[in-house]
Amino acid sequence: MRKRVYKLLSVSKTPGDLSWYVDAFIITLILLNVVAVILVSIESVRIEFGNYFLLFEYFSVVVFTIEYLLRLWTANLNPTYKKPIIGNIKYALTPLAIIDLLAVLPFFLPFFGVDLRLLRFLRVFRVFRLLKLARYMVALDLINRVISKKKEELVISFILTGFLLVVAATFMYYVENNAQPDKFSSIPETMWWGIITVTTVGYGDVYPITPLGRFLAGIIAIIGIGLVALPTGILAAGFSNELSQGQQKNQRCPTCGQLIRKK
Amino acid sequence: MRKRVYKLLSVSKTPGDLSWYVDAFIITLILLNVVAVILVSIESVRIEFGNYFLLFEYFSVVVFTIEYLLRLWTANLNPTYKKPIIGNIKYALTPLAIIDLLAVLPFFLPFFGVDLRLLRFLRVFRVFRLLKLARYMVALDLINRVISKKKEELVISFILTGFLLVVAATFMYYVENNAQPDKFSSIPETMWWGIITVTTVGYGDVYPITPLGRFLAGIIAIIGIGLVALPTGILAAGFSNELSQGQQKNQRCPTCGQLIRKK
Amino acid sequence: MRKRVYKLLSVSKTPGDLSWYVDAFIITLILLNVVAVILVSIESVRIEFGNYFLLFEYFSVVVFTIEYLLRLWTANLNPTYKKPIIGNIKYALTPLAIIDLLAVLPFFLPFFGVDLRLLRFLRVFRVFRLLKLARYMVALDLINRVISKKKEELVISFILTGFLLVVAATFMYYVENNAQPDKFSSIPETMWWGIITVTTVGYGDVYPITPLGRFLAGIIAIIGIGLVALPTGILAAGFSNELSQGQQKNQRCPTCGQLIRKK
Amino acid sequence: MRKRVYKLLSVSKTPGDLSWYVDAFIITLILLNVVAVILVSIESVRIEFGNYFLLFEYFSVVVFTIEYLLRLWTANLNPTYKKPIIGNIKYALTPLAIIDLLAVLPFFLPFFGVDLRLLRFLRVFRVFRLLKLARYMVALDLINRVISKKKEELVISFILTGFLLVVAATFMYYVENNAQPDKFSSIPETMWWGIITVTTVGYGDVYPITPLGRFLAGIIAIIGIGLVALPTGILAAGFSNELSQGQQKNQRCPTCGQLIRKK
Repeated sequence: MRKRVYKLLSVSKTPGDLSWYVDAFIITLILLNVVAVILVSIESVRIEFGNYFLLFEYFSVVVFTIEYLLRLWTANLNPTYKKPIIGNIKYALTPLAIIDLLAVLPFFLPFFGVDLRLLRFLRVFRVFRLLKLARYMVALDLINRVISKKKEELVISFILTGFLLVVAATFMYYVENNAQPDKFSSIPETMWWGIITVTTVGYGDVYPITPLGRFLAGIIAIIGIGLVALPTGILAAGFSNELSQGQQKNQRCPTCGQLIRKK
Repeated sequence: MRKRVYKLLSVSKTPGDLSWYVDAFIITLILLNVVAVILVSIESVRIEFGNYFLLFEYFSVVVFTIEYLLRLWTANLNPTYKKPIIGNIKYALTPLAIIDLLAVLPFFLPFFGVDLRLLRFLRVFRVFRLLKLARYMVALDLINRVISKKKEELVISFILTGFLLVVAATFMYYVENNAQPDKFSSIPETMWWGIITVTTVGYGDVYPITPLGRFLAGIIAIIGIGLVALPTGILAAGFSNELSQGQQKNQRCPTCGQLIRKK
Repeated sequence: MRKRVYKLLSVSKTPGDLSWYVDAFIITLILLNVVAVILVSIESVRIEFGNYFLLFEYFSVVVFTIEYLLRLWTANLNPTYKKPIIGNIKYALTPLAIIDLLAVLPFFLPFFGVDLRLLRFLRVFRVFRLLKLARYMVALDLINRVISKKKEELVISFILTGFLLVVAATFMYYVENNAQPDKFSSIPETMWWGIITVTTVGYGDVYPITPLGRFLAGIIAIIGIGLVALPTGILAAGFSNELSQGQQKNQRCPTCGQLIRKK
Repeated sequence: MRKRVYKLLSVSKTPGDLSWYVDAFIITLILLNVVAVILVSIESVRIEFGNYFLLFEYFSVVVFTIEYLLRLWTANLNPTYKKPIIGNIKYALTPLAIIDLLAVLPFFLPFFGVDLRLLRFLRVFRVFRLLKLARYMVALDLINRVISKKKEELVISFILTGFLLVVAATFMYYVENNAQPDKFSSIPETMWWGIITVTTVGYGDVYPITPLGRFLAGIIAIIGIGLVALPTGILAAGFSNELSQGQQKNQRCPTCGQLIRKK
């Protein structure tokens, strides 16, 4: 019995069998939940169809709770979490299990006497149901691989961006504070200008007006764009590399014409 | 007779013969049509020269209709659509034929009693005449090839962008809704902010004003830029690759100096 | 005599000789001219020091005119323009000679009875004196090489961008015209929105406000960014390639360890 | 004694020994200083906790001054600065030593009778304490290497960007000055528009309104984006290259399977 449940819940690779339909059902339910979160945020929809969405929410929570409990119960069948109770706890602490828990927890908190205000905020976490999809996405494997390979470059460029932001905001604060005390009121405030400039978003709500400030902004913009765009370039190269390696597995040597079989 | 028409309409590769002039005439007419659509949208031009543009429109529709009918009639001479009637229908359902039809259809709809309001909207489709150029553009082949080779990466980055947009808009909606209920009125509304931020367009019509919202926006901007820029990097690599392969076909081996003939 | 003048004016490669000082003098004068054009545009500077700038302008025009005439006179010594008069005319029609002429011509036009209004506009062309620097810039060679190698890709991406702009502006015009008749008043007007969106500049002076318009703008932004960024990626690859080829001239073969001497 | 101090102050590679704790202490103090500079810029914090921050400032200056003096004193132990007094002066002129001095100097200037107004401005330089971290950052080595390798490309693209900015601003000034004399009041003023457009920040405080100005802006935006993005592409390629070389040092030959030992 437990084995059958375990198999049903694990990701199926043969379309058409029962486990595949279970996957499809859960994926559909997750996507519908996200659609529901989006739609219910529109006031006119909330007023007219609020009750139906509430029913759907009850239904989803029931399904996801059962799913969570079954997964917890059958975790021992995975060799990694073999030991009866320690294994189950270990499984409960994996990222995927925590996501599953967070996806239903906000619903049950009022029963534990949690303040309603806090609760309103916790409803945001319903969007984490989207992350439940991670279990079914092969693409995430690829992304994980690329990011872990390029970790070093990414960390460096993030540190440098942080560096630049702090230096830029400090200078800008001292330069523009007198001219626009309301917009460049402190360094953290000025950082908002910095991040929006360096990412080239440029909303236009805050910008320097003094000549020195504009000169500084110009230099920061040019340097900053380079820094912010670095991770992109690095990631693009990483993705291209990773995906082309699969295609290059059977390639001919340019000198001798022999087939090269890379691992 | 039918053979001669077929030859005249097919894309000519020897400049100077009659079929080449037919191509040039149709291409010119298409470009003039686009210019006309653009010019006629200027009110002062519409008032003064409206009649001439209407005449030109009649003329174009006649030519394009004849072209469409002749292409349909001679389709059987193409081995792919050999069978008398089934072949013609098959041809009529190819993308190029549908574009040809859409380019003239809006003109004839009033005769079929279509509502005038809908018709006004259908005039937009006159711009599809531009797509008729697809038949003559070799560059599109290249683009097709690049996109189909990099399909996998492109799909992944679009899914991730969609993912990020939904998560970002949901969070932002809960964070900013209280402070700016008119601009962040619902999650779909907030998505407008999200897409304009993540693409770094940053019109400045909607932006967060709360500290938490600004912090979130900063993080989303940095992550989002990377995601949105990924397809660009991937496509640039693809184009570079595809075009340099043509040049590398006859390359000398760096070690032995022999000519390498890649497939 | 003519030979000595020719040698003095041609670009010197041995720093310290007279020809080198002539180069340095002309380059300095060009840069000072650009600085003068910039400074004289500031009203307070124009009022106070206008006369000095006028004197400097007279001096520059005299020098540049003499330089132009000498270059024209000595053109025959260049084997390409050997023939007495035809050679001089041929030289006068080269881009560098035309730039030299345009750099002084606006000054002499009033003597030929050119309207003063037109003349005011022609003063813009003083900025072309900057282009006189082209003669001395080795870097331009590199750029020329890269651009001519990647011509094909660049042309394709520009055609596609034009394509997208026309289609996007036409759709946007029909969608937003009713809601904002003043900002989306015609397709050419809407193209201003298109170009500012697709380049991600996003000034925020024009943006869609209808839901359909926003949806369209989102899609156009994502597609357009890719298209506009393509040439950048292509050029960056080209530059990287071109410059690394110089460094790779003496490289060891990865298989046999022998030195490879590329041409 | 001097030797022990020298060892304590030099960067330790074995975590856990005393020199390592000294490093950790200084790094922590630097980071806390930056946090202090940021926090004290918030008015409410300054009013309530100003005294504590002043105490912390006194403490930091004392520590950094002692550190600076000790470093200066022990500089002779570094073989590069061997000679008794000339060596110390030489060390004092290295970038790292100048940063160390600038990080404390503003504090001592009032004792030398420096004007208070200037002093207020000099407080900006407290942010240079952040640069003291340079001594401990391995990543900067990498960046130095990448930048020095790609110097040529970077210089070219900066020159070209400057070129474009001057030409663009001059043209735009002549085109838009009549329509918006307050925003395009001079060429330097117009350069603010230029840099914000070319970097695609696009705050929206200055933008052309005449048709010719908009046409020019569109062309400049497309060209400029390419130019500004060039260094980014070049740097990304450089980083990718530099970091992948470390991984490729011990690579197997694709044809023969032998280990290739690159220098």
